[in-house]
Amino acid sequence: MSSEFELIAKFFTRASPSARLGVGDDAALIAPTPGMELAISADMLVAGTHFLPDADPFDLGHKALAVNLSDLAAMGAQPRWALLSLALPQADEAWLAPFSRGFLALAAEHGVDLIGGDTTRGPLNLSVTILGEVEAGRALRRDAAQAGDAIWVSGELGGAALGLQHLLGERSLPPVEAAACLARLRRPQPRIALGRRLLGLAHACIDISDGLLADLGHILERSNLGAEIRLAELPLAAPVASRLGESQALRAALAGGDDYELCFTAPADRAAAIRAAAAAAGVPVACIGHITAEAGLKLLDAEGRPMPLHETGFDHFARR
Amino acid sequence: MSSEFELIAKFFTRASPSARLGVGDDAALIAPTPGMELAISADMLVAGTHFLPDADPFDLGHKALAVNLSDLAAMGAQPRWALLSLALPQADEAWLAPFSRGFLALAAEHGVDLIGGDTTRGPLNLSVTILGEVEAGRALRRDAAQAGDAIWVSGELGGAALGLQHLLGERSLPPVEAAACLARLRRPQPRIALGRRLLGLAHACIDISDGLLADLGHILERSNLGAEIRLAELPLAAPVASRLGESQALRAALAGGDDYELCFTAPADRAAAIRAAAAAAGVPVACIGHITAEAGLKLLDAEGRPMPLHETGFDHFARR
Repeated sequence: MSSEFELIAKFFTRASPSARLGVGDDAALIAPTPGMELAISADMLVAGTHFLPDADPFDLGHKALAVNLSDLAAMGAQPRWALLSLALPQADEAWLAPFSRGFLALAAEHGVDLIGGDTTRGPLNLSVTILGEVEAGRALRRDAAQAGDAIWVSGELGGAALGLQHLLGERSLPPVEAAACLARLRRPQPRIALGRRLLGLAHACIDISDGLLADLGHILERSNLGAEIRLAELPLAAPVASRLGESQALRAALAGGDDYELCFTAPADRAAAIRAAAAAAGVPVACIGHITAEAGLKLLDAEGRPMPLHETGFDHFARR
Repeated sequence: MSSEFELIAKFFTRASPSARLGVGDDAALIAPTPGMELAISADMLVAGTHFLPDADPFDLGHKALAVNLSDLAAMGAQPRWALLSLALPQADEAWLAPFSRGFLALAAEHGVDLIGGDTTRGPLNLSVTILGEVEAGRALRRDAAQAGDAIWVSGELGGAALGLQHLLGERSLPPVEAAACLARLRRPQPRIALGRRLLGLAHACIDISDGLLADLGHILERSNLGAEIRLAELPLAAPVASRLGESQALRAALAGGDDYELCFTAPADRAAAIRAAAAAAGVPVACIGHITAEAGLKLLDAEGRPMPLHETGFDHFARR
C-alpha cells in the first residue's frame, strides 16, 4: 500500500472501544458476547452499478454502511463491528473527508466500531463487512415462515424507486417530494430497532433491497410456501400514491428496490404485539397479506379478487 | 443483483458445517468458541494494482484467500470462516470455475468455510474478509516486541520479488527457478501452522507482504523499539542467492514484497523451542538479528559492521 493510501486510512481510524484490538495490526481482535451468535454479512457497492459516479460522497458513506446494517436488521441482530475495504481512483481528500463522515456518523448512531479493512488504488469500489450479535438460536431467518402467518412490511414502499426515476430525469417531482424520495434512495434508514424487537414475535424476515416481490419471494422459496398479498394494504410512500397512476404506483411498491424496509411474517394472533413493537421502535408497520401452504404468490385487488400476474407484469418477480 | 450474477454465486455455495447458518440468508450466523477471541481481517485485490489483468484465475482464487490467511497466521489465529465479495466485468464461467476452485481448495486445506459475500458487476475486484479464532489474550500483536528479543523469519525471502521481475521481463530465469519463484508469487503459502505454534513463544509477529524492512518497521514503530539485522543471516531464496548480485539480492530480500512469510520476535533463550515449533510446523526459520531499546534499524554486514542505510538504498523503508 502506498503511503498516499496509508494516509487515506487515517480518515477511518477511530478508537474502537468495543474491540480488544482495533485498526493497525494484521487483524482486529474482538471478544464475542457469551450466549450470542455472530451475524455476518458483506455487501459491495460499485460505481455505475449501484450508484451514479457523481453521487454525493457523504451519502455514499452512509449508504455503504446502511445496506449492510439493513441485513443485520433483517436477522434481528444488534450491530457491533464493521470492516471497510475501499478501492479509489486517486487519494482525493475532498471526496474522502465527506465519505468517511457519512460512514462514521451512521456507525456512531448504531454503536458500530470500524475495526479494519483495506484501502487501495483502483476503480471506485466500496466493500463492507458487518458483524452483529443476536441471541443464540433466535435470529430471524428467511426459511422460518409458517402457513397462516400474517405478512408485514415496515415503513413505506416505492419512495426510493420514485427518487431514482426523478434523478434519472424520467419523472419530475415538486421539490419537497423530490427531497423526500431522494432521501429514501440516498440515505436509507436500517430498521435495526424494529428487527431487535421482532425477536420472538416474527417468524421469517428479510430486508427489501430488490423490491417486495423479489425479496418476499426469497422467504417463500426458502420456506417452501406461498402468499396472498392484498394490494390495497401496501403502504405506498406518499408521493408514490399521489404522483403515480395505480399501475405505476404498484410497480414502484412491488418491484422498486432500495427501500430497505423489513418484510416479515408472524402468527396472525400477534398483531397487537407487533404493532406495539413497531411503535416502540418508532416505525409504522402494515399487514399486507398472509402466508399460504400452497406455493405461489397471489396478488388480490381491493375487492379481494386475484389479479392475474401476467396482467401486472410481475410474473418474473413472482416466480423468482 | 441480476440473475446472471446469482448464478455466479452458485460457484461459491458449499455446505458450511461450521456455521449455524451459511450462505443464502441476509447474514450468516456463527457461534464463536467460548474462551476464544475472534481475529478479523480484510484485504482487497484489484486488477492492475495487485495482479496483472491476465493472471491465471486459479492462482488469483488461491492468492485472494492466501493473503488474508497470512494475516491470521501473523496473529497466531486458527482460520474458521471467510466472506468473498467479487466485482466482475462479466459473468464468465470460464474464469469463475477455476477462480472458485483455487479459492475453495485453499479454504478446504485450512478448514475455512465460505459463509457469505457478494457478487456484482464492475471492474475486477476481489474483496475477502477472513475470521479466525485465537485463545483469549494470547494473540501475537505487532506492539509486543521487547528489547533483547531475537528476530526470526520463516521460510525464505526474495523469491516472489524475483518471480515478479521474471514475469515483467526485467530478468530471465531458467525454467526450474522461474517456476519456483513464480509459485512463490502466485501461490503464497500462509504460515498458519507456524503461527499457531508460536503462541506463548513469540512476542510480536507480522506477515511479510510489503517487504521485510517495511513490515519489521511496523513492529518497531508499534513497539517503540529498534533492531539490528545481520544481513548474512537473511534466508535468501535459492535463485535470489545464485542469480542476483549481492546488492540486488539484498534488495529482493529486504524490500521485495509478496513473500508472505512471518517475521516475529521472541526472547533469545527460546531459540530451541522456536526451532522445534518450526520443525513441527514443517517450515524452516532463521534468526536474523535482535530488537534494541534504541530506536532505528541497523543493518550489519558479515563482519558485524553497520552498513549505512543511505548506501543500501533502503533508508526509505527503514524510516517507515
